[in-house]
Amino acid sequence: MTTPLPTSQVNIPPGVIDLGVGDPPFSLLPLALLREAAETRFSQNDPYFLQYGAEQGDGYFRLALANFLAEGFGFPVTADRLFITNGISNALDQICTLFTHPGDTILIEEPSYFLALRIFADHGLHTISIETDEDGLLIESLEEKLREFRPKFLYVIPTHQNPSGHTLSADRRARLVELSREHDFLILADEVYHFLSYNSEPPKAFAAWTEDAHVLSLGSFSKILAPGLRFGWIQAHPEKLQRLTGCGLLDSGGGLNPFTSAMVRSVIESGGLKQNIARLTGIYSSKLRVMDGALRRHLTEAVYSVPSGGYFFWVRLPGGIDAVELQRRAVGFKVNFRPGVRFSSRGGLRDRIRLSFVFYEPQEIEQGVIRLKQCLEHGE
Amino acid sequence: MTTPLPTSQVNIPPGVIDLGVGDPPFSLLPLALLREAAETRFSQNDPYFLQYGAEQGDGYFRLALANFLAEGFGFPVTADRLFITNGISNALDQICTLFTHPGDTILIEEPSYFLALRIFADHGLHTISIETDEDGLLIESLEEKLREFRPKFLYVIPTHQNPSGHTLSADRRARLVELSREHDFLILADEVYHFLSYNSEPPKAFAAWTEDAHVLSLGSFSKILAPGLRFGWIQAHPEKLQRLTGCGLLDSGGGLNPFTSAMVRSVIESGGLKQNIARLTGIYSSKLRVMDGALRRHLTEAVYSVPSGGYFFWVRLPGGIDAVELQRRAVGFKVNFRPGVRFSSRGGLRDRIRLSFVFYEPQEIEQGVIRLKQCLEHGE
Repeated sequence: MTTPLPTSQVNIPPGVIDLGVGDPPFSLLPLALLREAAETRFSQNDPYFLQYGAEQGDGYFRLALANFLAEGFGFPVTADRLFITNGISNALDQICTLFTHPGDTILIEEPSYFLALRIFADHGLHTISIETDEDGLLIESLEEKLREFRPKFLYVIPTHQNPSGHTLSADRRARLVELSREHDFLILADEVYHFLSYNSEPPKAFAAWTEDAHVLSLGSFSKILAPGLRFGWIQAHPEKLQRLTGCGLLDSGGGLNPFTSAMVRSVIESGGLKQNIARLTGIYSSKLRVMDGALRRHLTEAVYSVPSGGYFFWVRLPGGIDAVELQRRAVGFKVNFRPGVRFSSRGGLRDRIRLSFVFYEPQEIEQGVIRLKQCLEHGE
Repeated sequence: MTTPLPTSQVNIPPGVIDLGVGDPPFSLLPLALLREAAETRFSQNDPYFLQYGAEQGDGYFRLALANFLAEGFGFPVTADRLFITNGISNALDQICTLFTHPGDTILIEEPSYFLALRIFADHGLHTISIETDEDGLLIESLEEKLREFRPKFLYVIPTHQNPSGHTLSADRRARLVELSREHDFLILADEVYHFLSYNSEPPKAFAAWTEDAHVLSLGSFSKILAPGLRFGWIQAHPEKLQRLTGCGLLDSGGGLNPFTSAMVRSVIESGGLKQNIARLTGIYSSKLRVMDGALRRHLTEAVYSVPSGGYFFWVRLPGGIDAVELQRRAVGFKVNFRPGVRFSSRGGLRDRIRLSFVFYEPQEIEQGVIRLKQCLEHGE
């Protein structure tokens, strides 16, 4: 072999600091935890996890996960309300197949996670966006759209949103659930960053409302353990779980991930997942302060609010600069980011950029922000 | 815990011999192979497989798989034509999402794998069936349907078909590819049983025709390694691979299975997969002879042809007996099977049953067939 073959999704050109990357750092991928988990599982000499698995997911794994979630959320969670997925992207894809038809209308936040928008597009869905502010989506904007449209679902990232970093307030969560009942649409709550809270407890997760058949809480191990596992869960009402577990895909192949379930079950039961989250939140919160400090020192005219969790700063550039244009120039400064327009379903947010504070080491974060400042100063 | 939690898809009542089960036996699930593979992988101290993976699948894994396939198929296979999936059910689901719309017409064999039919139903596809004989689907029946319909794809299990055990002849394969070009439909060739051939080499796999953008060859580790891995591949023309790797699901989550890829890569590179297949074909071919002998001895009036690979005998019951009715009575005889009607997309094949010869030990196979005979003799 002369050149290395592709293994990772993201390939950053040498020397470039890409603050746009939404991946965990390689140094925090829990190799030792998974090695121990594999040793534990294989030492038990039971090959059950190599067979076609139960459609809803391995019962023992769901029990371990339910206990973990109950402690983390602070309210009861039972194994029978959990369905095991290959991660949130896969869950969204499957939900679109089973609960929508091409041409259906769905609601999303403005801004929202741009790659989810692409999944919805693959299913031919018509996307309407809802305005947001510091406390998440604006109920008035939602009510206005509900007068005009009959959406199948609302896709929302309630806590430490991607890209804005904002968290939907408790009041608005409650009101949102009321509206989903009144107007009979589903809430797909992508709670991927819920356990990555650095200062204070976030408002109660949407998982708390899954006794209502309108709410599906989507969880993932990508940000709290490892993305390469492609592994997550849906917490939902039995009515919705039945449609998911009864679909043709699962009837044919059985549970979506028996092998990975068996490994991650050991990580949870040993307490390793909890420890891993404590480690991540400690390191990420210190990186967050590093990026905040760097932005204050070097990008004095940039406007942003400090996130209280998650992965991202959402920054408004000074003087109405177009971020796509800036990105073109940034190549020469060996720095990169995600332009805001990629998170807009209507070509807006052109003066925003998304910066991740988790992927790089502190010195690189500072250096990246300095390069960004240089790029901004040396405009055309 | 008072009662065990569900881990497996199939739960057979105690004492029952269910010859309908399409799973590998627990005793042949390759626990030691995967333990060694995990040890090898973890010992290398590189956590790359825990990160978001390359969309098309880990390049090193694809290289190992390409080498394995080239040797097994007997013609060149290159890594750039392979796309890594979560198994064939998942691949079919994804292909339906990306290449069809609800209401589209597709073609299947009569009989065909009933659980694939359910996946197609979830996508709202309109299914037309093609007659088959001992040499697989009848070209005349296909041509007749092509005069009336414009199908998006034909789903075919060319080798050791499920449920019939029949293998599509080389001539018909070639003609099928010609017809797919003339009428511009895709061939989805489910080649899951190709490497489970017990007597002779099967005709050239459809993988050989993937230089043509009309042919997609779907492969799986479920029958040659372990179903619980939920792991497989698609071999196809770059035009088709581009649509698959460029979809929203993969753009968001990266490659479908980096973790499992890393484990199975070691199994292939060590030669373990090849050894495992040799072991399986040895044991399965002897079980096949056991079932054939038992059927000849005990079910003298049953009509079937002896399969040359795969998992199944496809048996016509004597005297036009309705297999669903027989199944009702079989409960009392502690035996079970799959009635033929489940493999029909039009409620036919009512006097057929599918029997698997791989799941049980030889004595149980014989005992199962004896119970079936008793059940047949003690009619209403």
